[in-house]
Amino acid sequence: MTAVQLYDATLRDGMGGGGMTLTAEEKLRVVHALDALGIHLIEAGFPASNPKEGQLFELLAGEHLQTAEIVAFGMTRRRDVTAEQDEGLRVLADCFAPVCTLVGKSSVLHVEKVVRVSPEKNLAMIGDSIAFLVGEGKRVLFDAEHFFDGFQLDRGYALETVRAAAAAGAERVVLCDTNGGSLPTSVREMVADVHAALPEVALGIHVHDDSGCAVANTLVAVEAGATQVQGTVNGIGERTGNANLITIIADLQLKMGHDVLPPESLARLTDTAHFVDELLNRTPNPAQPYVGKHAFAHKAGMHAAGVQADSQAFEHTDPEHVGNQRDILISELAGRATVIEKAREAGIELDDAAAQRTVEQVKALEHQGFQFEAADGSFELLMHKQSGGYEPLFRLESWRVLVEKRADGQVETEATIKIWIDDQQFIRTAMGNGPVHALDQALREAIAEIHPHLRDIELVNFKVRILDETKGTGAITRVLIDASDGQRVWGTIGVSENLIAASWDALVDSLEYGMHAQGHRQGSTAEVPRVQAGAGAGAKPA
Amino acid sequence: MTAVQLYDATLRDGMGGGGMTLTAEEKLRVVHALDALGIHLIEAGFPASNPKEGQLFELLAGEHLQTAEIVAFGMTRRRDVTAEQDEGLRVLADCFAPVCTLVGKSSVLHVEKVVRVSPEKNLAMIGDSIAFLVGEGKRVLFDAEHFFDGFQLDRGYALETVRAAAAAGAERVVLCDTNGGSLPTSVREMVADVHAALPEVALGIHVHDDSGCAVANTLVAVEAGATQVQGTVNGIGERTGNANLITIIADLQLKMGHDVLPPESLARLTDTAHFVDELLNRTPNPAQPYVGKHAFAHKAGMHAAGVQADSQAFEHTDPEHVGNQRDILISELAGRATVIEKAREAGIELDDAAAQRTVEQVKALEHQGFQFEAADGSFELLMHKQSGGYEPLFRLESWRVLVEKRADGQVETEATIKIWIDDQQFIRTAMGNGPVHALDQALREAIAEIHPHLRDIELVNFKVRILDETKGTGAITRVLIDASDGQRVWGTIGVSENLIAASWDALVDSLEYGMHAQGHRQGSTAEVPRVQAGAGAGAKPA
Repeated sequence: MTAVQLYDATLRDGMGGGGMTLTAEEKLRVVHALDALGIHLIEAGFPASNPKEGQLFELLAGEHLQTAEIVAFGMTRRRDVTAEQDEGLRVLADCFAPVCTLVGKSSVLHVEKVVRVSPEKNLAMIGDSIAFLVGEGKRVLFDAEHFFDGFQLDRGYALETVRAAAAAGAERVVLCDTNGGSLPTSVREMVADVHAALPEVALGIHVHDDSGCAVANTLVAVEAGATQVQGTVNGIGERTGNANLITIIADLQLKMGHDVLPPESLARLTDTAHFVDELLNRTPNPAQPYVGKHAFAHKAGMHAAGVQADSQAFEHTDPEHVGNQRDILISELAGRATVIEKAREAGIELDDAAAQRTVEQVKALEHQGFQFEAADGSFELLMHKQSGGYEPLFRLESWRVLVEKRADGQVETEATIKIWIDDQQFIRTAMGNGPVHALDQALREAIAEIHPHLRDIELVNFKVRILDETKGTGAITRVLIDASDGQRVWGTIGVSENLIAASWDALVDSLEYGMHAQGHRQGSTAEVPRVQAGAGAGAKPA
Repeated sequence: MTAVQLYDATLRDGMGGGGMTLTAEEKLRVVHALDALGIHLIEAGFPASNPKEGQLFELLAGEHLQTAEIVAFGMTRRRDVTAEQDEGLRVLADCFAPVCTLVGKSSVLHVEKVVRVSPEKNLAMIGDSIAFLVGEGKRVLFDAEHFFDGFQLDRGYALETVRAAAAAGAERVVLCDTNGGSLPTSVREMVADVHAALPEVALGIHVHDDSGCAVANTLVAVEAGATQVQGTVNGIGERTGNANLITIIADLQLKMGHDVLPPESLARLTDTAHFVDELLNRTPNPAQPYVGKHAFAHKAGMHAAGVQADSQAFEHTDPEHVGNQRDILISELAGRATVIEKAREAGIELDDAAAQRTVEQVKALEHQGFQFEAADGSFELLMHKQSGGYEPLFRLESWRVLVEKRADGQVETEATIKIWIDDQQFIRTAMGNGPVHALDQALREAIAEIHPHLRDIELVNFKVRILDETKGTGAITRVLIDASDGQRVWGTIGVSENLIAASWDALVDSLEYGMHAQGHRQGSTAEVPRVQAGAGAGAKPA
């Protein structure tokens, strides 16, 4: 089958979704994850739209990537300047990225009502801008904005914009369903029309999900002649999101026979999808096609063994192809081999018996409501404890938290802890803006006398989920804390009927991990790690 | 355009999704909401598969519906009995529902490997079962399970199953993509093939979203000849979910020109979608096509007025068509008219000035992190306070919560409150399994001396969300509590830097609302109310 190029827009278009923010360092981690997956082009944004983007391009310039090329994104020139005078185009020309995507108008409605230039001038703006960047040595893609709406309004003009871009040297024209309202049958027809009219122009497809058909629209566009698909990881993006590149990759490869990724890379699909969600502090959608936790779950009463024997009868594809697995009831960490592998990655020596004990402990804990996918720190500590090489930071005697709403309306929070390090007792009391913050303050006060660098560990995220799995006997609280030493981020977990007790457990793990990780992992790099990064540094727990 | 029949499978197939449970009473509320929307057929489940389903059919038998007909769901007869002997078919024949859907095999793989009967016997099982129910006076639909996979394995046999069903008197054959892996182009071709081969058979389409194409597959099936679409509200269902009927309705009506609902009903789409999510204790997906909170949000810098003037340029459809609205920044409750309307519904008299004050207060509170969509109780209290007719239940002097992890490892939680009712002071201390539970116990101890029936109010749900909107200056905690008096469920909210303080505020609102609601709302019925029901009664806050 024809090769289909994968173009990821997560770091630019994807950031338009509500509440989506990543630091430049986090974006760099996404770039490496996408590169490891085998994505061909990664759109990183406009090189200087704000300090964060500027910093990202500086970081990216020094990186070595396996497969991917970085794409800088910008707009065609402004209507009242030449391409050479346009500051935005100058920034693109000067940045390191070998490929530039320029967005421009291809709908007469937008040309006349929004940009307010003549249709001819718009064609000139497209042509000039592309020719300028090509002259500066860039490979250029043209994003034909509102293409499908424009094509329906004025087919001839929409085609002229495509022709103008190609004539100016664009290596590809990307047909965009910017408002996202198109349906598959008309998308297929329009892409086929363009392909028939301009068979020499390489086409891409970029759609949004406003009609719930973004994946399908992308697939039918490929059938009709597009050879590049654009989308975002997990379909994030403004409004209803962009086309979900994760689903598209699996459909193209497993259902339509295109070789978009090497098979071993396809198996990274689930990890990559979850990794980006975790960085964005989104709970991965359990119902997401291919990679969701429930994507290959089977009904109660249908035995896993039966499904395995006749998987073709009950599954649309093999979950292993995409790195997912059958049946949610089997823990992600259930296999001893997986645990040994995870231990090795973390620099922990674990023999078979210890690995088996770890597996059993994980199962027991997951039954209580623990979930280690986003708590790699706690999981590593757990392996540590089984390995025999574990020394606790301190021994807890007791803690106490007092929250008081006083008669004057003020709320005061105070925590006292009593701990032992070796044979020395430390008793500390601290205030906080919430019970967990106060406990954290008191604990650090105490430990930091012996381990001063623990002061550098910052809690960057604090999440509380009430689990209703045990309803009737009392709700269970699951607390996830992300901590960072400025270089790495790790997640820890606590589960208890009592919210404060759950928070305490996660808190202790986060500091213990911070200590232990120092001795290990020295050379480990962030290769699609299962680490969850918080959205903002310095967030205080409630 | 041809009429397309809407068939909702939320109450049966939708319940296969992880964590989906509704009581019989809640299902009844869903039935009324779907009926009010204008759904034609509502699949309620098997009439006696368990006590809950049995109870649902008893409740439904006494209900009057406007548009919808109730469908009972079952299987073709077992292989070793006649249709008359089959207990399941007998239950269907005896239930009140006028329509029955029978699921049966149409793939040779399943016939031979799973059911283990000959292809001929399977045809007899289909025919016998349908003929039996038709003879009992039922209208029968045949769900041709695994149809698309079966059609690709053995086209002739798959068609024979359709023919057998129609010959036995089925009024419609529903082509099912049970494993959910099909893509639009092949679905279209296969439906068109069936339609061409058996033009006299009315067809339906029932697909799952495992390839991310369920909506598109449904739409192309309609283009190819299907005249009934099956799906679930918000696409809930096992694995990756069923086709999302909400999206399908909007696409069919607004994009494809089918008259599936009267225009005034289409405007209920957003409320209906959110109502079902709230009943299921799911946070409505803000990115859901048409009905999501962000579905018509516009980029920062693009002014709402500009969009309004040229909405065709920036929106794929008018949000009002589906009862949604433009721009997330404008609060859902921003309009004075809306507030007056909501007050009227709640039996509160609010003049223009009071409504205006309410609008301003809501805006200010939303800015702080409040969110009233799931906190109707708190919102009603807020209107009450503005109306002037509000009497607080008590006056708080102070409260104090102590959580202690003792040296023996036990965690103990104790709360003390001091309140005044009229000129009497009440001081009460209570233990709890968590800080909020203890506060709740102490508060009820105190108030219940004066208002004994408050003891009957139960907290059915407790949710904590850490808001990162204010990161850097300290995380804000939002607590949502759902309470119930056994008849109604209401939601309340508290927001604070301090988790305990936020919980206290939500707690007080939940009891205050329970008191105040008694005097109002006497005759109010549950017509798509914005009330959130908890998943399980008796859940204790953490």
